[in-house]
Amino acid sequence: MITITAFEASPDRGQGLARDMRVRWALEEVGQPYEVRLVSFTAMKQAAHKARQPFGQIPSYEEGDLTLFESGAIVLHVAERFGGLLPQEMNARARAIGWMFAALNTIEPPVFDRALAVILEREAPWFAQRMEGLENGIGARLRDLSAWLGDGEWLEGAFSAGDLLMVSVLRRLEGSALLTAYPNLAAYVARASARPAYQRAFAAQLAVWEAKSGG
Amino acid sequence: MITITAFEASPDRGQGLARDMRVRWALEEVGQPYEVRLVSFTAMKQAAHKARQPFGQIPSYEEGDLTLFESGAIVLHVAERFGGLLPQEMNARARAIGWMFAALNTIEPPVFDRALAVILEREAPWFAQRMEGLENGIGARLRDLSAWLGDGEWLEGAFSAGDLLMVSVLRRLEGSALLTAYPNLAAYVARASARPAYQRAFAAQLAVWEAKSGG
Repeated sequence: MITITAFEASPDRGQGLARDMRVRWALEEVGQPYEVRLVSFTAMKQAAHKARQPFGQIPSYEEGDLTLFESGAIVLHVAERFGGLLPQEMNARARAIGWMFAALNTIEPPVFDRALAVILEREAPWFAQRMEGLENGIGARLRDLSAWLGDGEWLEGAFSAGDLLMVSVLRRLEGSALLTAYPNLAAYVARASARPAYQRAFAAQLAVWEAKSGG
Repeated sequence: MITITAFEASPDRGQGLARDMRVRWALEEVGQPYEVRLVSFTAMKQAAHKARQPFGQIPSYEEGDLTLFESGAIVLHVAERFGGLLPQEMNARARAIGWMFAALNTIEPPVFDRALAVILEREAPWFAQRMEGLENGIGARLRDLSAWLGDGEWLEGAFSAGDLLMVSVLRRLEGSALLTAYPNLAAYVARASARPAYQRAFAAQLAVWEAKSGG
């Protein structure tokens, strides 16, 4: 049986932006059931959880003797272990994995910085200038990503773990002018979010929040 | 034959911090010769290079019909294609890949933000406060990484692509109190940098800078 960890009370209040969402989505795409161990902010920083996740974060993944952390590594493991999220042919597989790293190392850092700045620096005297810098950086990345995608359905042929991570990251920009400036990217996010596996994963994480908040 | 791209004139002036270094290092570890196509800042943003690297960055990797980008994906491909940088056993392999993602998605973003802030925000009135926030974030990550490493030689058993990427990222902190605060991490970086493959890769990228600068 597979067990993952997730926030007991997600800071996004059930919007599906926490990093367990991408692991849930991958497991739904490959049709694997899983259990969830919810962790509080206090428990996350304690030894039992740090043995699973050395940085005291979520998600982690346990399957038999394997304990794994880093959402990108977990999604890659799920793709390799159960099939269906990466092409078989070696070069196409390498390209799809390339987009997984692009999502996490090229797109996510500035997108996440912006989300953090909105929370932590909103009252700071430099907030407007800082947001301008962050949004220019994100805008340049999205321009290039939009040019690559063109009128394609997915980044490379069929839907892959690369699309799964890229959409997971872009969802943090939903409703922002940064994303709506590129209709093909907004449509790409909508297309991915309409997948039944995404919908099941989203509902599962929302149910955690609703149970916690008494919603 | 393998061809990678690198800066014609690296902004780090031959310190080996640009992302071609990690690809050169991986290729040296597995004993594969490679050619280098140097690109100028102008050429990087033009169509010919963007066909290889959609975000107009370096490095890219060409091998027969395969064109790949994202240094993490290239290192993983090199590890899978030529062997020697990942354990054979499936769970140990997944763990090593976990550290690759940890290097690029957990450690590199704040470390790179700090390097950028030093360049772009040094004159800004908020610089001291911004650095404090960044360094607190990096310090928390290094504390956890140091605790994980303990007195081990590498992150998991034998040297792997996970160590290669982690050390590549930590090298940006060399000489900083952030790193020297954790002697086991400083020793880990020194141990990895002493590997003959690292030394060959470092010399190769330095030679590019020296030829360019007339050094």
